[in-house]
Parts: sequence; C-alpha cells; structure tokens
Amino acid sequence: MRHIDEDNITQAVIARHAQASDARLRDVMTSLVQHLHAFAREVRLTEAEWRAGLHFLAEAGRHGDARRQELALLSDTLGLSMLVSALNHRVPKGCTEATVPGPLHAGAGDDGHDHAAPLPADDDRHAAAVAGEPCFVRGQVRALDGAPVAGAEVRVWPAAAAGGHDGPRGAAVSGPDGRFQCRGMLAGTHAIPHDGPVGRLLQQLGRHPWRPAHLHVAVDAPGYRRLLTQVFRGGDRWLDSDAVFGVRGSLVADWARHEPGPTPDGGTSAVPFHTLDFDFVLDRAPAARPPSD
Amino acid sequence: MRHIDEDNITQAVIARHAQASDARLRDVMTSLVQHLHAFAREVRLTEAEWRAGLHFLAEAGRHGDARRQELALLSDTLGLSMLVSALNHRVPKGCTEATVPGPLHAGAGDDGHDHAAPLPADDDRHAAAVAGEPCFVRGQVRALDGAPVAGAEVRVWPAAAAGGHDGPRGAAVSGPDGRFQCRGMLAGTHAIPHDGPVGRLLQQLGRHPWRPAHLHVAVDAPGYRRLLTQVFRGGDRWLDSDAVFGVRGSLVADWARHEPGPTPDGGTSAVPFHTLDFDFVLDRAPAARPPSD
Repeated sequence: MRHIDEDNITQAVIARHAQASDARLRDVMTSLVQHLHAFAREVRLTEAEWRAGLHFLAEAGRHGDARRQELALLSDTLGLSMLVSALNHRVPKGCTEATVPGPLHAGAGDDGHDHAAPLPADDDRHAAAVAGEPCFVRGQVRALDGAPVAGAEVRVWPAAAAGGHDGPRGAAVSGPDGRFQCRGMLAGTHAIPHDGPVGRLLQQLGRHPWRPAHLHVAVDAPGYRRLLTQVFRGGDRWLDSDAVFGVRGSLVADWARHEPGPTPDGGTSAVPFHTLDFDFVLDRAPAARPPSD
Repeated sequence: MRHIDEDNITQAVIARHAQASDARLRDVMTSLVQHLHAFAREVRLTEAEWRAGLHFLAEAGRHGDARRQELALLSDTLGLSMLVSALNHRVPKGCTEATVPGPLHAGAGDDGHDHAAPLPADDDRHAAAVAGEPCFVRGQVRALDGAPVAGAEVRVWPAAAAGGHDGPRGAAVSGPDGRFQCRGMLAGTHAIPHDGPVGRLLQQLGRHPWRPAHLHVAVDAPGYRRLLTQVFRGGDRWLDSDAVFGVRGSLVADWARHEPGPTPDGGTSAVPFHTLDFDFVLDRAPAARPPSD
C-alpha cells in the first residue's frame, strides 16, 4: 500500500502487524491503533495539541521515582485503573467487590501494590507506632453460600499520604467461624500527589485531587480469589467525587468513634479509637486458575 | 454518582470534566477518555498488560534527549504522526501533498522540525561539505491555477541518519517564472532509531525500522500555506513499507544519476551526481489565517 492518506492509514498500520508472532499483542495493538486514530479524527487533533500531548507524556514518564509513577496517576485519574480493575475482578452478585488498587503503584506486585515488605510479626507493636487514631476492624469472612472461611488472612492498612509510603499494616487470620479482628489505623481523607503534570492537568480540568477516607483491605484464603479492595468511610465529603473513581456503594461503611478507654482487643486506648464492622464475601477461585490470579 | 462500575465509569469521568474552563480541552479529553476506555473494554485489558503499558510509556518518556523523542517515534510508527499531518494539511486536489514531518522532532518549531539554525548564506559551501553524492533539485513553484510563484523559498535537506542530525540544507528562491534550482545531497535509505523501547516493540510486531530514501522539502511563499513534505526515490525497496507510513504516491519521483562531469549549476562534479525534477503546487493561505499556519 504505497499511497497513504487519512482514510486508509489505520488499515495500513494494522496490516503491518499481521506478522506479529504474539497473537495477543497483535490484537491489543490493532485495537489500540484503531482507537488512537479514531480519537485523532474525532477531535481533528491539531499539530500543536499532538506535540503538547507527547510532551505531557514524556514529562510524566520522567516524573516518576521508586515510590511514584506519574503515568499510573494519570491512569487513575482518567478512570482507566478502576476500569481495568473492574474488568479483571468481576464477581458474582453478593461477593465483596474489588476497587482500584490505589494511586501509588511503585514496586507493584501482582496486584499493583508493594507487598515486598514482610508482614509485621507483631501487629500490636506496629499499630502502637501509628500516629493517628487506632481503628479496630472486625467481621466475618464468608463464601458466597454463607459458609464461614477459616484461615483467611486479612490485612488492613491506611491510605498512603500524598507522595508518602503506605501506612503500617494490621493483620489477622480468621477463626473456625470465619470471624476476625485486627487493629489498624484510621484512614484519613487525603489528596493524590498533585505537584506534577497530572496535578496541572486536574487543575486545568477543574478537578480536585481528593480521595474520600478509606482503608485498604486484602483478603487471601486458599481456594478463593484474592480480594483487594477499599472500605470507604460513610459521610465523607469526597464520596461522590473520588479523584480516582474508586467508590462503590457496597464498600461504604460507618466507622464508630469511641472515647479513650477499653478497646475490643482487651486493651486500653489513651486516645479516641474507632471500630469498623465489615464482612468480606469471597469468590471461589476457578480450579484451572493459578493461585496468583 | 457514588457507585462506580465498569459500565458507568466512562460517563462518570466525562461528567467530572464539565467544569473545565477550556472547552477545547474538555472536548479533547472527553474523546480521549471514551476511546481509552473503549480500547480497554474491547481487548479486556489484563492488569499485567496495563502495567506493561504504563512501564513502556514511562521508559519511552525517559528515553528521549535533545535530539530524540522516543514518544514521537512511537507516534510515528503507529501512524499517528502521519494521520495528524494529513488531518491538518488537507489541500485541494492538484496541490502538492504534505507528509509526516519525520522521525526526529527535537527542538520542534511549528512544523515539528528544528529550523532554529539559520539558513546557510552560501549554499555551495555547505553542499561541498556533503559526504554523499550531490543532488540537484529543480522545478517550478506554481499556484493551483498554474500561475508561477516567484520569490518562493525552497529548502531541501537529506533525511537524518539514525539518531543523528539533519543533513546540510540546500536552498533557492524561485525566479519570476517560478523556477528554482538548488543543490542538495542525495537522500539515502535509513532506519529510524531502533535501539530503544520503540525498536523493541517493532521487533515484537514483526516490523522493520526502515524508511525509503527521501529528501525533505520545505517551500515558503507569501500568501501561500507552508509546504513541508518529502520526495521519495522511485524504486526504493521500502516504498511499500515505510516504518512511519509517510509515502504518498504523488511524492514518489525518479532521481537520475549522472557520471562525474559538468553539473546543472555550471560547475563540475568529481563524483557522480543526481538530478531530480519536481514541481511544487502551493495552496493559497486563507486570508483569515495567520501566516504561521
């Protein structure tokens, strides 16, 4: 095809990939090229806009470091991260829903989060180091049919502060009745990092960088699909406008605040503390699926 | 909209941009988000692919330097650069067509090329420094109605070698009959830079990095739209598979090769030289349009 013009170029590019050895890569690139070209045609992208877009992406690519990937932030704020999460974590009605893994994807493990650090051997010691107010999370881990799931590992951690590290983690293992209780830290409202190119874009779009207060939760149990989600605090002012579009109605819950005194774990808190009751319903892992999925 | 799911997220993101102060930015982002999400849905993008895509873009963003923008190369090889050029340089039938500005966009002026360097005052001196064989380009600059265009500035330069700088330029101004002749350098076949992420992608897609031999041409004349194009050498083996999809049938021409001896400019060449006869038909600039368009 020697004569390339604005009408035939998309097919010309796609045809060039016919010899790709990886069929999946070919299919992904075919769809990508079609949508990229359709976008340029639809808005009749100017050359100045095209250059501005390339410069924006290059700046974002250079902006990242070990703790921050600006392009992941871009994906988050354009709803792509949440969409990809939703497409890959469809669960039967009644199971606890997943949500966007969060705005910081550095050192991503297979769920987009950094789990390289070992779990604390002594949760209380870590919880004691928490600067905020403690939060006791308790509930039951169940299968869709209502059967309790024993031996499920439940981990909770607060949202990362802007540009900072994930907070300390609390962890517990569910008992024979599926019930668990672990001590975490109150999740506060926070802004995603917005001192870079993505922050500038949000401002140009008239958007704020805030996320509603939430607690990250991971639940792992043999025979079930890993659940990676967030529980949002009811009444938060940003529930309707989460900067990364992660709020699902089923994941909003009430935290109860308690005055200093005896805590559910039999101890005593000298500062106010919180309790959150939340049950997690897991989806069975397909037999053919590797456990890491 | 509190409950985000895979069906409503696209509208949720678009709705968030309703307050953007710049209507054009809002429209561009609306289309971008729709196509980005449609792509992810169409291929049901996996989380591993999503992360690989982000890493690829970040690596490409970091790969550029003052002479090379890897993301511009990506745009070139996916046909986006050529499409944007075609969308923005539609000309009436009979006018000389534009093509992709080329694979190196560093220091881009308003046409995507570095014109910061002043034109050589003495073309012959520059042409003499050319390592390849000289090429005499001659022809006529005309308007669409056939009227000769006098005083048009014609500049020619060879394709940049991989990763290198654009070659030396030849320049001429058309006479009262619209005719011009300038001395350039023979354009050779060359590969686009392919030692980075884009080169890896091309390899995975079963694609080569070659461009057919071509000569860059810019023609500027008061009252006419700037023409920025390339003339391709007939018979080149890569004409049908230009790595950046820039070949238009109307831009393919024959170079005639001559043995050492007298040259069209009245001089003598001690090495073989070439002649290329090519006329350029300019599109009138809309009266309302600023001259820089």
